[in-house]
Amino acid sequence: MESKLPNVGTTIFTVMSALATEHKAINLSQGFPDFDMPEALVRLTGEAMQKGYNQYSPMAGWMPLRESIAAKIQDLHGASVNPDTEITITPGGTYAIYTAFTAVLRPGDEVIVFEPAYDSYIPNIEVNGAVAVRIPLEFPTYRINWEEVRACITPRTRMIALNTPHNPTGSILRDHDIEQLRQIVEEFDLLIMSDEVYEHLIYDGQPHRSMLRYEDLRQRAFVCFSFGKAYHCTGWKMGYCVAPPTFTVEFRKIHQFNCFSCFTPAQVALAEHLKDSAEYKSISGFYESKRNYFGQLMQQTRFKPLPSYGSYFQLYYFNHLSDLSDKDFSIWLTKEHKVACIPVSAFYQESIDNGVVRFCFAKKEETLERAVERLVKVY
Amino acid sequence: MESKLPNVGTTIFTVMSALATEHKAINLSQGFPDFDMPEALVRLTGEAMQKGYNQYSPMAGWMPLRESIAAKIQDLHGASVNPDTEITITPGGTYAIYTAFTAVLRPGDEVIVFEPAYDSYIPNIEVNGAVAVRIPLEFPTYRINWEEVRACITPRTRMIALNTPHNPTGSILRDHDIEQLRQIVEEFDLLIMSDEVYEHLIYDGQPHRSMLRYEDLRQRAFVCFSFGKAYHCTGWKMGYCVAPPTFTVEFRKIHQFNCFSCFTPAQVALAEHLKDSAEYKSISGFYESKRNYFGQLMQQTRFKPLPSYGSYFQLYYFNHLSDLSDKDFSIWLTKEHKVACIPVSAFYQESIDNGVVRFCFAKKEETLERAVERLVKVY
Ligand SMILES: CSCCC(=O)C(=O)O
Ligand SMILES: CSCCC(=O)C(=O)O
Repeated sequence: MESKLPNVGTTIFTVMSALATEHKAINLSQGFPDFDMPEALVRLTGEAMQKGYNQYSPMAGWMPLRESIAAKIQDLHGASVNPDTEITITPGGTYAIYTAFTAVLRPGDEVIVFEPAYDSYIPNIEVNGAVAVRIPLEFPTYRINWEEVRACITPRTRMIALNTPHNPTGSILRDHDIEQLRQIVEEFDLLIMSDEVYEHLIYDGQPHRSMLRYEDLRQRAFVCFSFGKAYHCTGWKMGYCVAPPTFTVEFRKIHQFNCFSCFTPAQVALAEHLKDSAEYKSISGFYESKRNYFGQLMQQTRFKPLPSYGSYFQLYYFNHLSDLSDKDFSIWLTKEHKVACIPVSAFYQESIDNGVVRFCFAKKEETLERAVERLVKVY
Repeated sequence: MESKLPNVGTTIFTVMSALATEHKAINLSQGFPDFDMPEALVRLTGEAMQKGYNQYSPMAGWMPLRESIAAKIQDLHGASVNPDTEITITPGGTYAIYTAFTAVLRPGDEVIVFEPAYDSYIPNIEVNGAVAVRIPLEFPTYRINWEEVRACITPRTRMIALNTPHNPTGSILRDHDIEQLRQIVEEFDLLIMSDEVYEHLIYDGQPHRSMLRYEDLRQRAFVCFSFGKAYHCTGWKMGYCVAPPTFTVEFRKIHQFNCFSCFTPAQVALAEHLKDSAEYKSISGFYESKRNYFGQLMQQTRFKPLPSYGSYFQLYYFNHLSDLSDKDFSIWLTKEHKVACIPVSAFYQESIDNGVVRFCFAKKEETLERAVERLVKVY
């Protein structure tokens, strides 16, 4: 069969996790925790199954869950979101992002994407016949150059894809970015796809500048979230999309004929679990400790950190070994030192190799210790 | 926002289920059981969560589950399928169908679709810029007219969409259909999307003529299955797609950037549960009894049945009330007699109203009895 997507390979996460398994390496590549998820959520989901909540939920999602999400958004961002017309439950954040792009994009539309970019965005855009206009984040701060954004806008620009906290770099949007964004989307009448799956993993007391905080921005945005990231259960594939009513209508036109609805027992459980606002407010602190612990351990190594302000991830330089590409380095590190990471060049369409790799610190302390014991030996 | 899919409304299943809830009607519209799913599967899933299988499964699915599926296919169809390269686990059958279409179709491609058709097919085709060439099944047998299929083939015909057992009619493919299909797909080099989500619900001793039984057909086919239908848990949204290796590569290019992977604990549980071949072989008998029971009760009413050879569904004429369209009749029945059904015209793009409605008999005996007590009063 002639491929419709000849340039799409297997995602780097699958490649590196498989390599880690093959070489029995400690897997700090793909982003997932190696510790337990909240017991209460497991228990509530088990109870929902026992009680017989095993048939289709409504297509847009179990209403009590949508109500709990609306309450959380009110609590965190002071925004009033209508659970009936503005929230749709999805099987994960990646699916929400795919569905948002597919709901809107037509052949020839242009979407501004910042690189390094989570690797689904560009294939999602291209499968819809649209074009990704790639802008590199400034190196090594990984901030957006708004002048460059302006310079790239054409009459075909339809949407801008944002991600805060940012995967793979851990950078976050600042007030300055929000100001620039407001001006630009207004001036050029752009839509926004905002990937906020790491909303609850943001450090050093920074607020999460969700699109939902800014009434003008939120009226233009599909905002995508993940329960897997919040509650340490990436394999549950539960998330949601918040968007204004007219956007949500279009989003659901795709969703209803794609997955249609999501795993009901977990929706019933999350509706209850999400009411614990102390818990979701504690997540950032929990992961900040992990970032700090890993960072401290890594000081024993020859890797040099770039700052992480959020997400599961921290980038490190390996330029004491700069004769290797970041890809070759990652493979070598996995095979020789039995620690897997992700080469940041994999997040660029045309390999831009700055000699940095991504480590996932969402791991037990022992795992981080064992990994660093090995990384200390890298010369 | 200007709609990309202006002709797509809310699915009839959502509309009728909502109407049923609003009017406290017995809901025989949307296809889902109202009885318990297997306890063992609930228990195994609970155990998987407890044991910590809560992170991403591999993108293509939990390997032991893919192995159990391959063993089942061997057992049922004598076909040898490679779990590594030919099976992908998906969040439900509808998603598998969407992904198969999206993996293959390009703007201008034509797909042959038989009407009445499950309502996702045509939007799935059109969102990819392809064209659905609609052929009505013969009324009232709902068999395929293969002469008409030949007459509709053009150089742009790329794929043929099949569904056996068929939703909404309960018709099934026969040996004659398989012969015709073999000749046509070979002669015109067509691909197949085969929706076999009701594989385990087939009656009167008929075999399920899966594409997987016929080596030549299976080399051209994406075959889509559902665990929700087999194990009475439509809200679990678990299914899979079986396709030859080169097709599976393309399928996964879409899947990896759409949902990426599926709810891990249920995959771990299903890997075990599927080993019980006596259980999956008993499902048809279980539902055949329901069909028979419902059919017997319905003899007290003025509704006249069309035969159902498989699926959750049976069609009934209401032509003693033929001054109403089937849509108006369904709404009226829901509001006035408190029994919800689905108008079969909803499965046609351009309303073809043969005065038949679909009832779902996948219900407890008491539910069927209570529904028929009400339907007896319909004059
Ligand atoms: C969906 S697999 C990728 C997980 C992840 O978000 C990452 O590792 O970046
Ligand atoms: C995905 S909702 C529709 C359920 C179903 O298959 C039907 O009622 O036909």
